[in-house]
Amino acid sequence: MATQLSSKEDYESLLDKYDTWMFDCDGVLWRGDSPIDGAVETLNSSGKRLLFVTNNATKSRKNYKGKFDNIGAQVTVDEIYGSAYAAAVYISSVMKLPKDKKVFVIGMSGLEEELKEEGISFIGGTDSADNTLETFTLANFTLDPDVAAVLCGLDMRINYTKLSKAFQYLTRNPGCQFLVTNEDSTFPTADGLLPGAGSISAPLRFALGRDPISIGKPAKTMLDCIQAK
Amino acid sequence: MATQLSSKEDYESLLDKYDTWMFDCDGVLWRGDSPIDGAVETLNSSGKRLLFVTNNATKSRKNYKGKFDNIGAQVTVDEIYGSAYAAAVYISSVMKLPKDKKVFVIGMSGLEEELKEEGISFIGGTDSADNTLETFTLANFTLDPDVAAVLCGLDMRINYTKLSKAFQYLTRNPGCQFLVTNEDSTFPTADGLLPGAGSISAPLRFALGRDPISIGKPAKTMLDCIQAK
Repeated sequence: MATQLSSKEDYESLLDKYDTWMFDCDGVLWRGDSPIDGAVETLNSSGKRLLFVTNNATKSRKNYKGKFDNIGAQVTVDEIYGSAYAAAVYISSVMKLPKDKKVFVIGMSGLEEELKEEGISFIGGTDSADNTLETFTLANFTLDPDVAAVLCGLDMRINYTKLSKAFQYLTRNPGCQFLVTNEDSTFPTADGLLPGAGSISAPLRFALGRDPISIGKPAKTMLDCIQAK
Repeated sequence: MATQLSSKEDYESLLDKYDTWMFDCDGVLWRGDSPIDGAVETLNSSGKRLLFVTNNATKSRKNYKGKFDNIGAQVTVDEIYGSAYAAAVYISSVMKLPKDKKVFVIGMSGLEEELKEEGISFIGGTDSADNTLETFTLANFTLDPDVAAVLCGLDMRINYTKLSKAFQYLTRNPGCQFLVTNEDSTFPTADGLLPGAGSISAPLRFALGRDPISIGKPAKTMLDCIQAK
């Protein structure tokens, strides 16, 4: 049940009650590259076990570690859980993707790094052939029969070639899984809101008429991953 | 009520019954650039009043006339009703967009041509500044307060800059209208299905949490426009 905190004592009593605290990052610890007032000091002096949980899949845990370092927060990679990492763990440990199969990625380098760390083969993503505004035609496209999943995260280089290829895999490769790192419709930057990962995957949802498996909050998948550690 | 046609007489009796016939184009008269067997001969020898109604907003009526010419079908511009044309008529005649206001376009040159014909000011569309995969940041973006509508059609050069700008106009310019040429989730090409205009507008629907006004079939807007002529 939600409780309204008002006095200093209310806050202290809540802090005393729990040893482990989970924090969101974007919009909670920082907006873009600007730390939120007091956040760093609070983290460094908390004396608590801290975990950082983020739906933002454009960055790997190592990228996040660098971001924490930059703002002066003392955080280790093991304390960071991102939807990119959780998606990679889901594909290797829950889906148990066979080693000869691969993933078609709509997403950025942070997502690719986490897939590499888990030993998952992938195509798409930051491949220059897929980062183009040239006209996409099926006549010039060869379907890769080994693509067994499409994984979609926030991709600021989203384009018609990536969407069209993902759509081909999801409609033409039997059993191809449709996964999204998270379903956030927007994400907060230093200067305001921009379309989020949920919005980037929306064309595929609309074209397919079905919803993907979502990894990040509020889906349980990422939290299961944290609990297992 | 739908009737099953089986004999030659059934077809002849249906043909005798109506003087005006409306045809869809993509997937009915052609797939990509390949005419469908018998379509051209049927049109040229029908002796009926023919109208061609298409949701495809990547082409203007003049572009379509060229396409009919190429396959040898005798069709005039006045017989062609596209969702690009209908969207332009809707903006000028129904919305009555003031002359000092403008439209932000997600779409291709055919859509822009129809807006120009109706004397509607617009930005976005094929503008090279908006056809980029460079990172979009709000810090480098200036909101144009005169944008009073976002019009979204099939755009094979869709990208994060266009989506982000459209999202800013729809959330920050009070009363900014959200229009789509049509809601087709896919469209048929010679080699198979690709994501359609409805899928291209899906990120904005998802980010905004609301549906646009749709112009093409099955919405009534384009048919009202035909009936008024």
